[in-house]
Amino acid sequence: MSNTVSRKDEELIREVIEDVKPAMRDRDAERIISRYAPDVVMYDLAPPLRRPASETLDPQRRRDWFAGFEGPIGYEIRDLDVTAGTDLAYAHSLNLLSATPVGSPQGFELWFRATYCLRRDGDRWLIAHEHTSTPFYMDGSFRAALDLRP
Amino acid sequence: MSNTVSRKDEELIREVIEDVKPAMRDRDAERIISRYAPDVVMYDLAPPLRRPASETLDPQRRRDWFAGFEGPIGYEIRDLDVTAGTDLAYAHSLNLLSATPVGSPQGFELWFRATYCLRRDGDRWLIAHEHTSTPFYMDGSFRAALDLRP
Repeated sequence: MSNTVSRKDEELIREVIEDVKPAMRDRDAERIISRYAPDVVMYDLAPPLRRPASETLDPQRRRDWFAGFEGPIGYEIRDLDVTAGTDLAYAHSLNLLSATPVGSPQGFELWFRATYCLRRDGDRWLIAHEHTSTPFYMDGSFRAALDLRP
Repeated sequence: MSNTVSRKDEELIREVIEDVKPAMRDRDAERIISRYAPDVVMYDLAPPLRRPASETLDPQRRRDWFAGFEGPIGYEIRDLDVTAGTDLAYAHSLNLLSATPVGSPQGFELWFRATYCLRRDGDRWLIAHEHTSTPFYMDGSFRAALDLRP
């Protein structure tokens, strides 16, 4: 593996991951979905424990999710750290979702952790596994820790 | 990459991941820590968002955690799916922690998701990034979803 190839791969991988930002802005379900492998395994912010590929790749499900928010849907990716190998790659970041639910007097901002596992597919990279989460307070309240900031 | 090499690597990677089970049983902090790279980035069940390597690799911190539980600490790893590449690997599973906090009348069982990102280090594999979490209920309660089962 030459450093040159690795640097170009790292750029491609960053593009795949960060393409979620304009896709969220434009509420473009297909653009989000096009980044995933057909057998993607998703560990999402909300239940279930494991989301099957059929749901992750369903554009109508994403459009329904978009429809739950008024105005712009903001998405930031901070501290994105990419490790690119010959045939696989992984990356992690701290992400910020900001949006206003329909009917809500005000919006929310939610910081969460994201891990991306990718595999090479010809001359592109696909996300084969994604894990997003917040930690939870082990103080007896069992509340999701939605108030953390990086 | 030959399939033979890949299969042996997958076995080695499974051993690294699953070694947490006897290490938990024996409350062996060093054995847990020996599986991690020196620069490991941990996204843990509890805050903060991102745990620095200095904490993940601190045996006293783990011994303090063990001391919070009475009797056996159970750890299961289900549906472990390993993807091994030439120089990197990733894996995901659904894990069960069962333990009884000191002073608690009864134990708990907690299912959670785990993602492991590994890199080859000579003839072994090290965990360079680990992400464990439960989802949370987006029903307004913001409770961690601790009652899910695979």
